[in-house]
Amino acid sequence: MDLSAHLKARAQVIEAALDRYLPPASAEPARLHEAMRYSMEAGGKRLRPALVLDACVAVGGDEQAVLPTACALECIHTYSLIHDDLPCMDDDDLRRGRPSCHRQFDEATALLAGDALLTLAFFLTATNARQPGIGPDRAAQATAELAEAAGAPGMVGGQMLDLMSEGTKPTAELVETIHLKKTTALLTAAVVCGAILGGGSEAQIAAFRRYGRGMGLAFQIVDDILDLVGDEAALGKPVGSDLDHEKATWPALFGIEASRAVAQELVEDALAALAEFGPEAEPLRMLARFVVERDR
Amino acid sequence: MDLSAHLKARAQVIEAALDRYLPPASAEPARLHEAMRYSMEAGGKRLRPALVLDACVAVGGDEQAVLPTACALECIHTYSLIHDDLPCMDDDDLRRGRPSCHRQFDEATALLAGDALLTLAFFLTATNARQPGIGPDRAAQATAELAEAAGAPGMVGGQMLDLMSEGTKPTAELVETIHLKKTTALLTAAVVCGAILGGGSEAQIAAFRRYGRGMGLAFQIVDDILDLVGDEAALGKPVGSDLDHEKATWPALFGIEASRAVAQELVEDALAALAEFGPEAEPLRMLARFVVERDR
Repeated sequence: MDLSAHLKARAQVIEAALDRYLPPASAEPARLHEAMRYSMEAGGKRLRPALVLDACVAVGGDEQAVLPTACALECIHTYSLIHDDLPCMDDDDLRRGRPSCHRQFDEATALLAGDALLTLAFFLTATNARQPGIGPDRAAQATAELAEAAGAPGMVGGQMLDLMSEGTKPTAELVETIHLKKTTALLTAAVVCGAILGGGSEAQIAAFRRYGRGMGLAFQIVDDILDLVGDEAALGKPVGSDLDHEKATWPALFGIEASRAVAQELVEDALAALAEFGPEAEPLRMLARFVVERDR
Repeated sequence: MDLSAHLKARAQVIEAALDRYLPPASAEPARLHEAMRYSMEAGGKRLRPALVLDACVAVGGDEQAVLPTACALECIHTYSLIHDDLPCMDDDDLRRGRPSCHRQFDEATALLAGDALLTLAFFLTATNARQPGIGPDRAAQATAELAEAAGAPGMVGGQMLDLMSEGTKPTAELVETIHLKKTTALLTAAVVCGAILGGGSEAQIAAFRRYGRGMGLAFQIVDDILDLVGDEAALGKPVGSDLDHEKATWPALFGIEASRAVAQELVEDALAALAEFGPEAEPLRMLARFVVERDR
């Protein structure tokens, strides 16, 4: 099986579903809907929704039935990028080679588009209850899981810690906490929600938590390494920007080689977490390996 | 029964619950948690959570069991105020006589505090499933109801329409659409969620939708009248600010007396919607009457 082909096929299904779930650009307020769609259509790997589908399949669930929650993960990821790019945050003019949402529209529209996407995410997880074989119990559980991962205990809290750490010399403990909250929480929620909705056992859900932790932390460490050494054109953003801001990163603390070794160990642990699963978990294994092997 | 005493008793219960649900100010990231609590503690009438409890009681439900969702309504109301006050929106330095969140902290913290409160709201509605007598079916329904009312189809969409209407001469139809989305949707969601969670029938839920529409629209019209004629000190904000911005309001279109008459008619309709209910809906009736009689 080829991971790239797998992700491309997943992205097609996810993008078709997103088009159904997002408010039409033709309806009022058109400007809000256009901004939501502009940022959602900017692309990316659709990694988080793919993880929902892959985790659901790994526990024997029906991937079609969890598409709303898969799309909810992408809504939350995209809202976080829109708000992070705002002038009061990272003040980024570009996102994936195009003007960021507030540059393409304006700050107020970008703020509201982010708010609307975050809110849409929970509409999708709640109404996922209506899909065949899902039911409200699993939908309510997945909604709570996602809200915890995205909010103050998770992503938003990590973003705040990251902002506060700028210009200071962070400890290894703080860097790990930031990574766990800012990136890993949402990636873990993706596989855990997929497993909950797919009818996974407590043991399977626990295995996916461990998988998410290892894969997610490795993902962030490799991201920070690529930001230091990666090819500017391949990444589509200026190299070394994290070092300029004295941001909390693993390679800044321990160097690139040691950081690569840590990422490798974390991915090994993620793979070990999947030991009880058969070939149906193969996409998740390939994804974990890809995280440390990618060059962009 | 005295409405003021009723609302005060409700506010005490709601504020005690909010204190339990909000992340502790002592935990990291303390600055984020402090900003969330600063804005949540700024007070106000706690009207929306009171509506959840009152609607639940009116259909024979247990008010204790719906406290998480009642608090979710207040989280969403407060997040919307924090984001509305930001420089890229209304750029307000004051909120209820105190510095607005971004003036007390900073813009990034205010943005994130709003995001975290919005996310916490859905954690609360989803985990409301665990309260006695509620269950996941009602919790998932209430979550979807709230997400629709708060998002692009409701409050956020209304905010966007309102922004876009500034500096133009709005039609009566547009003003009504803005009011329905921006204010009425969330007030209606409060009573509808209370009725859903309390085990109300379809007919009762429909009655509350009608009640919410009449009461909510009247609430906004009276707000706009008070903004024109109200006493500056009583309101705690400069009078006439909506006229300066050429914002879409009912009194600006039709004058104060005609607007008062419309508000009165809407409240009559809200009261008519409650005709099938007995004395257990009395707080909701008093609230509707208060909406047109208040002077602040």
